[in-house]
Amino acid sequence: MAKIALLGIGTVGGGVAELLCSNAAQIAAGAGERLELKYILCSRPHPDSPFADKIIYDFSVIENDADISVVAECIGGVGAAYEYVKRALLAGKSVVTSNKELIAEKGMELLGIAAHKNVRLLFEASVGGGIPIIRPLTQCLAANRVDEIYGILNGTTNYILTQMFQCAQRFDTALREAQRLGYAESDPTADIEGLDAGRKICILADICFGRNVPPDKIRIRGISEITAADAALAGRLGFTVKLLGRAKRLENRLVVYVSPHMIGEDKLLSGISGVMNGICVKGNAVGECLFYGAGAGRLPTASAVVADLIDAVRHTPDGKGPRWAEGSDDLLADIDELPCRWYVRSRTDAAALERVFGGGAVTENGYSASITAEMPRTELEDLCAGLREAVAYPVLD
Amino acid sequence: MAKIALLGIGTVGGGVAELLCSNAAQIAAGAGERLELKYILCSRPHPDSPFADKIIYDFSVIENDADISVVAECIGGVGAAYEYVKRALLAGKSVVTSNKELIAEKGMELLGIAAHKNVRLLFEASVGGGIPIIRPLTQCLAANRVDEIYGILNGTTNYILTQMFQCAQRFDTALREAQRLGYAESDPTADIEGLDAGRKICILADICFGRNVPPDKIRIRGISEITAADAALAGRLGFTVKLLGRAKRLENRLVVYVSPHMIGEDKLLSGISGVMNGICVKGNAVGECLFYGAGAGRLPTASAVVADLIDAVRHTPDGKGPRWAEGSDDLLADIDELPCRWYVRSRTDAAALERVFGGGAVTENGYSASITAEMPRTELEDLCAGLREAVAYPVLD
Repeated sequence: MAKIALLGIGTVGGGVAELLCSNAAQIAAGAGERLELKYILCSRPHPDSPFADKIIYDFSVIENDADISVVAECIGGVGAAYEYVKRALLAGKSVVTSNKELIAEKGMELLGIAAHKNVRLLFEASVGGGIPIIRPLTQCLAANRVDEIYGILNGTTNYILTQMFQCAQRFDTALREAQRLGYAESDPTADIEGLDAGRKICILADICFGRNVPPDKIRIRGISEITAADAALAGRLGFTVKLLGRAKRLENRLVVYVSPHMIGEDKLLSGISGVMNGICVKGNAVGECLFYGAGAGRLPTASAVVADLIDAVRHTPDGKGPRWAEGSDDLLADIDELPCRWYVRSRTDAAALERVFGGGAVTENGYSASITAEMPRTELEDLCAGLREAVAYPVLD
Repeated sequence: MAKIALLGIGTVGGGVAELLCSNAAQIAAGAGERLELKYILCSRPHPDSPFADKIIYDFSVIENDADISVVAECIGGVGAAYEYVKRALLAGKSVVTSNKELIAEKGMELLGIAAHKNVRLLFEASVGGGIPIIRPLTQCLAANRVDEIYGILNGTTNYILTQMFQCAQRFDTALREAQRLGYAESDPTADIEGLDAGRKICILADICFGRNVPPDKIRIRGISEITAADAALAGRLGFTVKLLGRAKRLENRLVVYVSPHMIGEDKLLSGISGVMNGICVKGNAVGECLFYGAGAGRLPTASAVVADLIDAVRHTPDGKGPRWAEGSDDLLADIDELPCRWYVRSRTDAAALERVFGGGAVTENGYSASITAEMPRTELEDLCAGLREAVAYPVLD
């Protein structure tokens, strides 16, 4: 029997505790032995929790208990979580975590400590919630040179965009609805402004390209400028809007960014609605793969955390897990260097837009929109200079 | 450096040899050491092959070479492939294979031998070609009780159905086109009649439910009865037709079968076109996941075979890989017990169809079609008895 300690009993931590009980037989079959939850580290009492007898408040109890072989971190953030994960690894315990902020910002350092201490640090749940993505990338697609990875990485923004596009809701209404349903935080900034998606695409880029891409070094544009007019105009042009994190190889450099994208209605990604996530990988042997599922939520995220627990219990470290090296100043190419087609929305009338970008402009409620030919952003900005209130988003081709 | 032997240099085998050269650096990074292809077993000379110097004709050379730690079987079928895989395992070598027929029919026996000899038998490429599915099921979703798995498992039939539905081609024309493009064999029976999809859904059922499901024990219905009228009628009802392999838990028994299904246009699976494959898994924690990609083809399939080679080289056997136990006579429930909605196409006019099944019937070219309420097949057959030339397919809900 393997003894586990859990840090945090919030949404994800609670789901992990629940799953360890409810699917115990399944989990034991996978791990080859039973997994027993011995401690839950909390900051305050939870007298009504079914796991109240396991709750402790002092991390050093876990740190010093030689019985504990694996720690599951479900606190979030880079404060206490960073300290405890580091101490657990240094104490010779494997760690699994759902914490994207921690892995995006401190992953390189923590994986180095894990390798040095010959223990494991696993983080399947940090990207795409319950969707299997880290292991498929590092194992199933290991024979590929990955050239590009992108995806709908944030359920909150995808819910809001779906409501705007499918139900013609305004941004504010859709956001309030998402908050009411528990899909959005009371302070929704990290989701809406793309920071959460930014952390996740950095982790995917780290893994796919083997070099550290810090979240504060990439261009991030959220969805707060998307308007009801965009929903109507994009629909008439045959597109829908999705917030994508995207990382693409550009010769020896990488373009990594977050932005709303126009996606043609013939692409699978355009059909991913509500809080669901989808991640597309392009490998030089396999071609295009897509992974779809619940990107957040109590049990889906716990499903990935517990899969990592099973893996950590079952496999001794072989020093060959995912690692990435330090990045460098010239690693990241600017998104402006990536030529693409653009969606341009403007107060200028359709005829004027067509004179600048060619035919096919549409008009709706005083706005016009058009899809441009492929061009870099600098050229686009020159062309947009004479247009009234022009806003542009890249098209995913 | 790990030394590999390859059995067969056809489409998949040739792709494996090519990939081991072209992506050698990537592969060495994944495996932690270089993979060297030492032998290729063929039945005849290939003087123009870039790998001609590695070709041998006698399996016992591989069997008796202690340098060879892993054998990749890309011959196909259950004749020579079965003999060689068994002998390789008995000689203490790990085996990876893309052979669905072999795993569906002999997997239980061969996995037993592998466990007994403490070597590995991996078969990621046997289902879904390049799509990561076996490892996600056995590792990433290990904390779940899988309740259902289904998918578009055969690219040839999906190509034909796509041509029929999107380009209004007749079945015969679409089949000839598929043969011209190399998507269909000159004898297309195994694809068209669903046998290939049947083998694959049996492997997925074996893994998900842990009991052996032999392909000759499941109900298999192919696509040869799908007509141009179905394409037109289904489209008007808001559906498309896909050939699905499906395995579903029904209390303590399983329903496993292959059949064309009507799929609503709001489902992601309905958008999977051409030769692409997609597999949907429903777990009791993760909810619904979908895995999409190239289900066949030289390099996509080789991508999965080489991923298994990397895994076999990197990880020593721990006796905890996927296994399944013998099935039993009462394990499989009949598809007739599965209540579902049905698409019914008939020569009877729409008004008559509506009298039997309720409103919403459509008519096209002398045929009418309707979607029924949920009912088991026996009840459906009673209701269809009075209709002219009635044909029914289940709706995927």
